[in-house]
Amino acid sequence: MTIYSNIGKPNKRIDALDKVTGGAKYIDDLKLPGMLYAKIKRSKFPHANILHVDTSNAEKLSGVKAVVTGKEFAANFNNPVFGDPLADQPFLAVEKVRYIGEPIAVVAAISQEIAEEALDLIRVEYEQLPTVLNIEDALKCDAPLIHEDSKNYKYSPGFKPTENTNICRYIEITNGNIEKGFKEAAFIFEDTFTSHSTHHVPMECRAAIAQFNPDDSITVWASDQSPYGGRNLIAAALKISESKVRVITPSYIGGGFGGKLRLSGSMPIIAIAWKTNHRPVKIVLTREEEFTSTTIRHASIVKLKTGVKKDGTIVSRYAKVMLDTGAYADRGPTVLGKATGTSIGPYKIPNVKVEGYCVYTNKAIAGAYRGYGNPQVCWAYESQMDIIANKLGIDPIDIRLKNMVEEGYITSTEKQEAHAVGLAECLIKVKEDISQKREEKIIENRKRGNGIACSYKISRTPSGANAFIKLNSDAGADIFVSSIEMGQGVNTIFAQIVAEELTIPFDNIRVLPADTDITPFFPASTSSRTTFFLGNAVKKAAQDIKEQLFKIAMDILEVDKEDLALERGSFFVKGAPEKKLKITEIMEKTYPGGISILGRGTYYHYKLGNLPSHVKVGIPPTLVWMYGSQGVTIDIDTETGRVKILKISAAHDVGKAINPVTCEGQIEGGVLQAVGNAMFEELLFNEQGKIINSSLLDYKIPSALDMPEINPILVEEPHREGPYGAKGLGEIVMVPTAAAIAIAIYNAVGIRIKDLPITPDKILKLLKVN
Amino acid sequence: MTIYSNIGKPNKRIDALDKVTGGAKYIDDLKLPGMLYAKIKRSKFPHANILHVDTSNAEKLSGVKAVVTGKEFAANFNNPVFGDPLADQPFLAVEKVRYIGEPIAVVAAISQEIAEEALDLIRVEYEQLPTVLNIEDALKCDAPLIHEDSKNYKYSPGFKPTENTNICRYIEITNGNIEKGFKEAAFIFEDTFTSHSTHHVPMECRAAIAQFNPDDSITVWASDQSPYGGRNLIAAALKISESKVRVITPSYIGGGFGGKLRLSGSMPIIAIAWKTNHRPVKIVLTREEEFTSTTIRHASIVKLKTGVKKDGTIVSRYAKVMLDTGAYADRGPTVLGKATGTSIGPYKIPNVKVEGYCVYTNKAIAGAYRGYGNPQVCWAYESQMDIIANKLGIDPIDIRLKNMVEEGYITSTEKQEAHAVGLAECLIKVKEDISQKREEKIIENRKRGNGIACSYKISRTPSGANAFIKLNSDAGADIFVSSIEMGQGVNTIFAQIVAEELTIPFDNIRVLPADTDITPFFPASTSSRTTFFLGNAVKKAAQDIKEQLFKIAMDILEVDKEDLALERGSFFVKGAPEKKLKITEIMEKTYPGGISILGRGTYYHYKLGNLPSHVKVGIPPTLVWMYGSQGVTIDIDTETGRVKILKISAAHDVGKAINPVTCEGQIEGGVLQAVGNAMFEELLFNEQGKIINSSLLDYKIPSALDMPEINPILVEEPHREGPYGAKGLGEIVMVPTAAAIAIAIYNAVGIRIKDLPITPDKILKLLKVN
Repeated sequence: MTIYSNIGKPNKRIDALDKVTGGAKYIDDLKLPGMLYAKIKRSKFPHANILHVDTSNAEKLSGVKAVVTGKEFAANFNNPVFGDPLADQPFLAVEKVRYIGEPIAVVAAISQEIAEEALDLIRVEYEQLPTVLNIEDALKCDAPLIHEDSKNYKYSPGFKPTENTNICRYIEITNGNIEKGFKEAAFIFEDTFTSHSTHHVPMECRAAIAQFNPDDSITVWASDQSPYGGRNLIAAALKISESKVRVITPSYIGGGFGGKLRLSGSMPIIAIAWKTNHRPVKIVLTREEEFTSTTIRHASIVKLKTGVKKDGTIVSRYAKVMLDTGAYADRGPTVLGKATGTSIGPYKIPNVKVEGYCVYTNKAIAGAYRGYGNPQVCWAYESQMDIIANKLGIDPIDIRLKNMVEEGYITSTEKQEAHAVGLAECLIKVKEDISQKREEKIIENRKRGNGIACSYKISRTPSGANAFIKLNSDAGADIFVSSIEMGQGVNTIFAQIVAEELTIPFDNIRVLPADTDITPFFPASTSSRTTFFLGNAVKKAAQDIKEQLFKIAMDILEVDKEDLALERGSFFVKGAPEKKLKITEIMEKTYPGGISILGRGTYYHYKLGNLPSHVKVGIPPTLVWMYGSQGVTIDIDTETGRVKILKISAAHDVGKAINPVTCEGQIEGGVLQAVGNAMFEELLFNEQGKIINSSLLDYKIPSALDMPEINPILVEEPHREGPYGAKGLGEIVMVPTAAAIAIAIYNAVGIRIKDLPITPDKILKLLKVN
Repeated sequence: MTIYSNIGKPNKRIDALDKVTGGAKYIDDLKLPGMLYAKIKRSKFPHANILHVDTSNAEKLSGVKAVVTGKEFAANFNNPVFGDPLADQPFLAVEKVRYIGEPIAVVAAISQEIAEEALDLIRVEYEQLPTVLNIEDALKCDAPLIHEDSKNYKYSPGFKPTENTNICRYIEITNGNIEKGFKEAAFIFEDTFTSHSTHHVPMECRAAIAQFNPDDSITVWASDQSPYGGRNLIAAALKISESKVRVITPSYIGGGFGGKLRLSGSMPIIAIAWKTNHRPVKIVLTREEEFTSTTIRHASIVKLKTGVKKDGTIVSRYAKVMLDTGAYADRGPTVLGKATGTSIGPYKIPNVKVEGYCVYTNKAIAGAYRGYGNPQVCWAYESQMDIIANKLGIDPIDIRLKNMVEEGYITSTEKQEAHAVGLAECLIKVKEDISQKREEKIIENRKRGNGIACSYKISRTPSGANAFIKLNSDAGADIFVSSIEMGQGVNTIFAQIVAEELTIPFDNIRVLPADTDITPFFPASTSSRTTFFLGNAVKKAAQDIKEQLFKIAMDILEVDKEDLALERGSFFVKGAPEKKLKITEIMEKTYPGGISILGRGTYYHYKLGNLPSHVKVGIPPTLVWMYGSQGVTIDIDTETGRVKILKISAAHDVGKAINPVTCEGQIEGGVLQAVGNAMFEELLFNEQGKIINSSLLDYKIPSALDMPEINPILVEEPHREGPYGAKGLGEIVMVPTAAAIAIAIYNAVGIRIKDLPITPDKILKLLKVN
C-alpha cells in the first residue's frame, strides 16, 4: 500500500479562512468603473405572442442609460439563439413568450432602483395563446405547439427534436429481446413513479456583469459553474470566435448544484451590455427571479415494467421516462440521456427497452440539477425493487446483491464496461450500520421502519481537462484550473495533489479562480467530474514539474534517477541521506537570477468504442461509474403523518478519499439536499403555470433543525484511471435517498408512496385507505 | 534567408484600440470593495532626527480609518528595511529622515481629501542634523554620515558599503597594466564631465493599492515595471515567504523608464495597509510627490584619463565614475556597476583602471533610469573621443572604427566576449545619413554643426524568463508573461512570435497582464531585456505547443514529421497539399469534448564564466550587447545661445526588428527623451536639498514643438541566441544623444561643453570666453 503524505488526509480547507472571515469575494462584491445596473422586464403570460414592446417612456427616465428589447437584439445579431445540445432559446423573447417570467426587455441604469422603476414604464402588448402545463398534456396529438419551428433549430448530432410535437428529445434504447425477457419472467411488475419540480436554492442568487469591449470582444463576470461552457454558448449564439468571449468567475460562487450552468438565467445581461456603449452592466437576480426564471429540477413520470424470475433474478425491463423540461430545452435532452441510461439501476438486466421523452411545457425551464436525472429514475427503480423483494419474499439486500453489476460486465443500456464496482461493499456496510439497534424509545402512535436503496451514476464523456502549475522559487505553487470552488472543496483537493507530488508545504499552494483567458480548459464543474478528470490533469502537471526538478537534481548530485528520492521538499541520495538538496536550493543554484518551474497537464477520457482512430490509449477507457447505497431509519407518527428521520447511513464508493473530511461534507450536504427534495421542497404552479411559492418563506428547505443524524461511510474501490484511484462523489450522494425514505415508510406502516414529495397529508391519506 | 509571416512585419499594435478608445485601464481606474485612500506625511528637513510623531489629532478626524508611523510599523515587523542589492531603506522613516519628502507617517481615510486634511494634524518634532548635498562634500573625510549604521545592512555578495563613509558602493576594475599603458601613449587626455539630476516624468504618476488578507498574505496592485521584483523586495523586508505576496499590475502602466521599479516611491502603502483591518487602501502620488519622493536619474561626475598613440589607438584609460544616489541606495550600486563597466566605451582598450563611487547625499533617491548609468559615462567617453580626434586631426568616424570592439573580442572591463557587433554599420549609416546636404538656408548669426557619437549597453545577467501559452480550440491563444506593457510595444512583439510559430491569426492572440500569482517569472521589464529574454521563452512555449500539434497531425495524417508542414493554421502533407488539416480540426478530432493545448517555455541566460557547474549550455553564453550610433545636425544662434536640432540620425543594431514600427517608435521616443535630458530638463535643488521645480510648469520636458526630425535606422546584426536574432533596444537609444549634440555644437562654434545640461546661458558664456 502506498503511503501518502497528503492524499487521504483531512487537510484543512484552503478556503476556510476566506469563508469565516468574510474575505471571500462574490460577484456582487465586484464594482467596475462606470458600471451600470440592469433589471429585466419579464413575461406575465405563460404563452403569448408579443405584439408590441414600447420602451420609450422607460428610456426617458432620468438615470436610465439603455433599454434593449428582444427584437432589437435579434435583428442586430441575426436571430441569436443559444442552447446546447439544442439551440432553442433567445437572449430575450422576440416573437412570443413561452413561460411566465421569460425575459422580454432589459433596462440599464445608474442604480438598481432606477432600473426597477423603469420596468414599470415598459408597455408590452400580448396576444395570449393556449398553454400546456404538464407532460401528459404536452404529449397529446392536438397539444398547442410551444416551439412551432423546432425542425429548424440547430442541434448536436443525436439531438434532433421531434417535428411538430412538444418533444424536444426522444430516446429509445434496446438490449437483448424485451418480449422474450418478459416471457421468461415468473412475475411482471408494473408501476409508475412521479417526481416534482424543485429548485437548487443556492445561497447566492445568480449574478453577472457583462461588458462589450472596443475590440468587439465580450467580457462576462459571472457566478457560474462552467465558464468555458458559457463562453462557447455565447460565442456560438452570437456567431463570433470563442476567443472573443471571456468568462471570469470570482474566487467563489455561493452554491451551484447544476443550476449556475452556462449563464442560465443570466443571459439577458449580454443583450443589454451590447447597448451600454462599452460600460459594464451588472445584474443580481432577486430570490423571486432566481426561483421563477432560472432553471429548476425536472418533474418526471417514470413507468417501469419489470420481469423477474422466482429466485429474484431480473430478466427484463421496459422503462418509459418522461421529463418536463419547461419552455426551453436547456440541458433537458442530456438529462434525459442520463436518466434513460441508468433507468435499469446498477443491475444486470439482459433484456431491456427504454423510451425517453423530454417535453416542452409553458413553465419555468428545467435544467441540470445535482444528480442529473438519476434521482428521478432511482426513485422509481429502487422503489420497485422493494416492491419486488416484498412480493417475492426475498431480503431486499439479497435481491440487490443477486442482480448487481460486477467488474467487467457490459451494461445493457450504456453498453459500457462496469469497473471498480464498490456497490456491494457499500450496501453491506449500510446494512450493518442501519440495523444497529437504536436506543430511543418508541412512543405511542409512532412506528419505526428501515429502508435501503442503491444507486449509481456516471460522468459525462468524452471529457478533457487541462491544468497549469507554476512553482515559485520559494517552493510555493499556483494551480491554474477552470474548476469552480462552490463549496465542494475542490481547491483543497488540488492543493493536496500538488503537495503530494512535489512534497511541498500545503499552505504555500494556491488555486486561481477560473477565467477563460487564463485558466485552461475544463468543460464545467458538473457531472461529479472534477476530482477524477481535473485531478488527473493537475497530477500530470505536478509530475511535469517533478521531472524537471529530478533532472536538475540528478545533474547537481551526479546520480541516476533510481538513486534519488524526493521527500518533504528535498531530494536526497538513497543510501546517503546526507547528500541532500532542497527544491529551493535546486532553483537557486541553477537559476540565480530567479525562475518559476512550469508544469502543464492534460487529461482526456473517451467513451468506450468512441475513440478517434488515431488516438491510442494504454487502458481501454470506460465510463467513470460512481456507486453508493443509503439506509434510512424513520419514525412515523400515524396520527399526523409526520415522518422523523432518525438516521441516514450513506456509504459511497469514492475510489480513494483524497480528503475524507470534504468527502464526508459532500455526503452530509447532498443527503440533506435529497431529504429536502424528498420531503420539504416543491415548486408550486398555479393554473397559469406561475410559480406561486417563489420565496424562502413559502418554499421550504431543510434547516439545521431538520438535519437528521447522517453517518457517511467511505468505501474505496480504486478506479484504475482515477488520481490515486479517486472517483467522483458530488451527485451520487443525493440519488438513492428518496427511495430509501419511502421504503422505510413502507417498512414501518405498509404504505407505498409513488409520488414525490413525501408529505404528511399523502401519508395520512394512504394510511386511511389501508 | 528565412521568410517569416509575422516576424519583421509592422503589425498593428495589439494595444492600439484600447489606447485610442480610452478602454485601457490603469491603477487609478481600479476601485475595490471597502477601499480607503492614503496620503503620506513627509519630512520637511533634509537630515534630522525624529524626536516625536503625534498622530492623535489625525486619528480623531472623522473619516480617518488608520494612521501608521514608521516607529509603529518597524516595531511590528522587527525593523523591516528594503533594498536590493543593499537593504537600507525603511518603509517609513523611524529614527531619522534623510531627505526632504521622506515618508514619516501615512493616513488612510474614506476619501483622499480627508486623508490630505489629516496630514496637517500630524505633528512631527525634529532635531536637525548637518546635511550633505553633493558628491564632493559627501566624500569628504569629515562629512556627516547619512547612514551611520551601514556596516550592519544586509547586502548581496559584492555590494558591501564602505563603513563609516557615505560611499554605498565602491568598485575597482583593472585590466592589463594601466601605468605601462600610459607610458606607451603619445598623448594623454584628462577631462571631467558632469551630468545633472532628471526625472523620468511618466505620464501616469505612481499609484498602488495594497491589502493585507486574512491569511496574512499581502496583495498589491501597482503601476510597476517589476511585479516579481516588488514581490521579492516586500517579502524579504517583512521576512515572509514570497508566495505570501502577490503583486498585480493592470494591463497597462503609463510610462516607466526605470522609475516604476519594485514599488519605488509607493512602499509606504504597505505600512498603512497593515493597519486598515484587511481593507484595501490606494495611493496615487501627486505630480509634486512624483518629482520629489520617487526615484530620479543619478547626477554624475566622470573623470577620464586616456592614453592614445599617435595613430589614434587608445592604449589606456583611467576612469573615475561618481554617482549621487541620494538618501538611499535603491538601484544605485548596480547603476554604478553598469556605468563603470562601460566607461571605456565600445572600444578595445587593453590597459584599464576604473574606480566607481556611489555616494549618499541628503537628496531625493536616484535609481534606475532608462540607460542605467550608460548615458552618464557615454557623455564622457564620446565627448572625450571627439577631443582626441580633434587633437590628433583624425576623422571622428575613423578613430572610432579603428578602436571599435569586434566579434569575439573579450572586453577589458566586463571580461565578456563581444558578439554580434553591428556598431560599425550603425556608425557608417549615420555618417551617410547625417552628411547629406540639408536644404535650409543658414541665416545670419547662425552656425551649423554635425556631431556623431557611439554607444553600447548590456542587459543584466544571469537572467531568466518564463512563459505559458494556452491555445484555445478556435486557435486563439493567450500568452502568460510577467513583462509590462508601458508603451514599448512588447505585447505586440509576443503576439507576433506566437503567430509566427503557430501560424495562427495575429488578431486572436492576447497577452495577459502581469500578476505574480498567475504570470510566471520575469525579473523586471528593464535592462532592455524583454524581447531577448522573454521573447525566447515565449518562442519556446509556442514551440512546445507546435510539437504537440505535430505529433497529433502525424497520427491523423499517418506521415512522418519530415513530410508535414504547418502553414497558415493548417498542416499539410508535403507533395500532397490536398491532405490538409486545420489546427482547429486537429483539436476537434482528437478532443471532441474540448481542450486547450498548453505550452511552457523557460529561457535562461548566464554570464560567461558564471555557469553553475552542473549547467551545460550548447552555445557559450555571452552578455547581450546592444550597439548604436547617433548623428546630430544643429543650428546655433550665436547671439542667444539657443540650439536648434535640425536632425538626428539614430542607427541602432536591433539584431532583428521583430516589428520595425515599434523599433522606430522606441528610437524616436528615446531620442526625444535624451534630448530632453541633454537640453531641457533639470531637477533644481535649493540650499536645503529641496527640489524647487516639482511641477510640469517648472520642469520642462520637450513638447511636440521641440521634436526634431529623427531618422531611425535599423541595423540587424543577429544575436546567435536572440529570438530570430533579436536584441534589446529600449535604453541604448538615449545613450549617445547628449554627446552627439555637444560635439555638433563644438563642430559649429568651437566650444566644448562638459557639464550637462546644455543650456543657452552656458553656451553664451563659453562663446564669450572664446
